[in-house]
Amino acid sequence: MTLLSALDYVSVAVFALTGALVASRAQLDIVGFIFIACLTAVGGGTLRDVLINREPVFWVGNPAILAVASAAAILVFFAAHRLESRFRALLWLDACALAIAVPAGVGVAMGAGLGWPVVLVMGMITGCMGGLMRDVVCNEVPLVLRQGELYVTAAFAGAAAAVLLAGLGRDVALLACAGVTFTLRAGSLGFGWRLPVYHPRPPRDGLNR
Amino acid sequence: MTLLSALDYVSVAVFALTGALVASRAQLDIVGFIFIACLTAVGGGTLRDVLINREPVFWVGNPAILAVASAAAILVFFAAHRLESRFRALLWLDACALAIAVPAGVGVAMGAGLGWPVVLVMGMITGCMGGLMRDVVCNEVPLVLRQGELYVTAAFAGAAAAVLLAGLGRDVALLACAGVTFTLRAGSLGFGWRLPVYHPRPPRDGLNR
Amino acid sequence: MTLLSALDYVSVAVFALTGALVASRAQLDIVGFIFIACLTAVGGGTLRDVLINREPVFWVGNPAILAVASAAAILVFFAAHRLESRFRALLWLDACALAIAVPAGVGVAMGAGLGWPVVLVMGMITGCMGGLMRDVVCNEVPLVLRQGELYVTAAFAGAAAAVLLAGLGRDVALLACAGVTFTLRAGSLGFGWRLPVYHPRPPRDGLNR
Repeated sequence: MTLLSALDYVSVAVFALTGALVASRAQLDIVGFIFIACLTAVGGGTLRDVLINREPVFWVGNPAILAVASAAAILVFFAAHRLESRFRALLWLDACALAIAVPAGVGVAMGAGLGWPVVLVMGMITGCMGGLMRDVVCNEVPLVLRQGELYVTAAFAGAAAAVLLAGLGRDVALLACAGVTFTLRAGSLGFGWRLPVYHPRPPRDGLNR
Repeated sequence: MTLLSALDYVSVAVFALTGALVASRAQLDIVGFIFIACLTAVGGGTLRDVLINREPVFWVGNPAILAVASAAAILVFFAAHRLESRFRALLWLDACALAIAVPAGVGVAMGAGLGWPVVLVMGMITGCMGGLMRDVVCNEVPLVLRQGELYVTAAFAGAAAAVLLAGLGRDVALLACAGVTFTLRAGSLGFGWRLPVYHPRPPRDGLNR
Repeated sequence: MTLLSALDYVSVAVFALTGALVASRAQLDIVGFIFIACLTAVGGGTLRDVLINREPVFWVGNPAILAVASAAAILVFFAAHRLESRFRALLWLDACALAIAVPAGVGVAMGAGLGWPVVLVMGMITGCMGGLMRDVVCNEVPLVLRQGELYVTAAFAGAAAAVLLAGLGRDVALLACAGVTFTLRAGSLGFGWRLPVYHPRPPRDGLNR
């Protein structure tokens, strides 16, 4: 198994765990857990494959991917109540999944011989879109958009690192990508790292918005 | 007309009716009715066709599909006020549409010679995703996710029945699929059939979630 | 540069401005601005390209598109506070973007030699879906669905004008499309033009809905 296909499986499993945790917050039944877990696990990669016209879509060509996601969902259905805080677990698992999915997306796009701007975007899409679909469908505030956190930014920086280090070989670039993405996202969750957010004019000006 | 293409037309018409009923709840104008009706009617099948790379997408190759959906929307625009309860009508029409769209999706995937896990998933996608798009766009609580109801589960069981009975011929498998799906969904709506849902630790444990 | 490729760039830039304005209402950081701006700018055209199987998707083949959208996002991040009313600016920019994106979609579909019903729908998809994705992801009430406004209707009328005038040459048809779309949308915003919306039975009948 290559590094790239290992990344695919691990990212699917970890994203499926986050999907099942969100399903537990919505109190779904076990098929609902599997549905949301699969949506989250394959959403970003599916969009990537459709956009770059990779055929077949990764899980259509390899349905074992869906078995992995379903197993993760079943595990959460029976074990999630053992967690101290499901929301905290969700945040950190999602950070791990992001840091695995971004290099997985970058690797596929590099392998398809695409230019660096498209590689960058495909890394971000693979990392961010599965979680976004999960949150939109379950009507949660998307993690992607939580104010003052690094999320898309972490994915962007990781993908950019991979593009910059592509000359050192693919595996080095992908590991750097995972490292940068996880460091920024974890720093944001653990230490409150952030970029300045947009602020409208001070309130004294009145009617803005 | 084969059974399969008849399924396509009927599922489009019935899903369009549900889309138009949701549009009536949002008090849109007639073009808004047609827009939501078409989105609901072709959403699931479009996703299926894009994922399995069927060309052209079914309604691009046969725009009469859109005429059927538009006619259903216009009918609802002028006649919905005659219904006793639009929400009840929506639930039952949606159940019928689900029971027609799942076999339609299964039939297309079988015809494309895909493996059984993909056939299963394509049946579920064709059945569930159009309604999900309708509900997300109109900001309704997705029917797919209503607590303690069989929905994805009904689609899953129907698609699984089709896969198990594929040896008896396609038409038998598709009819069994429709029967199983409708029975489970209708039993859930009419008699409250359900699977156990996830419950967090009992409240005495306190701060879970 | 042809009229068609100019339309692509301008529609991307203007939709990106609207995306960034919505991001400013959600108080995102600068990468969040770029993310929402790109999603809005390329969402509709991407869906069109995937549905008609145009390869590659327009911005995958020409990443300069993404640079234009990012520049628009950065501009808004630093300058939006100078606007009197960001919501009013959003409405009018979105009207301009709609009136540019509909002919862009119509032009691509005509160029691909598709039949007129598909040309009509691709114009509407290119015009409406980017803004819809923006609003669903940011949890705003979709502009597409605001009660009693012409939006999908304006896109429909513009695309229909292009189809009817196709015999006069492509550029004439596209200009007419832009004019009709903008006139109807602007009339709706400025003068309250509207179609009758659906009303349930009068309240005296009681329990409807």
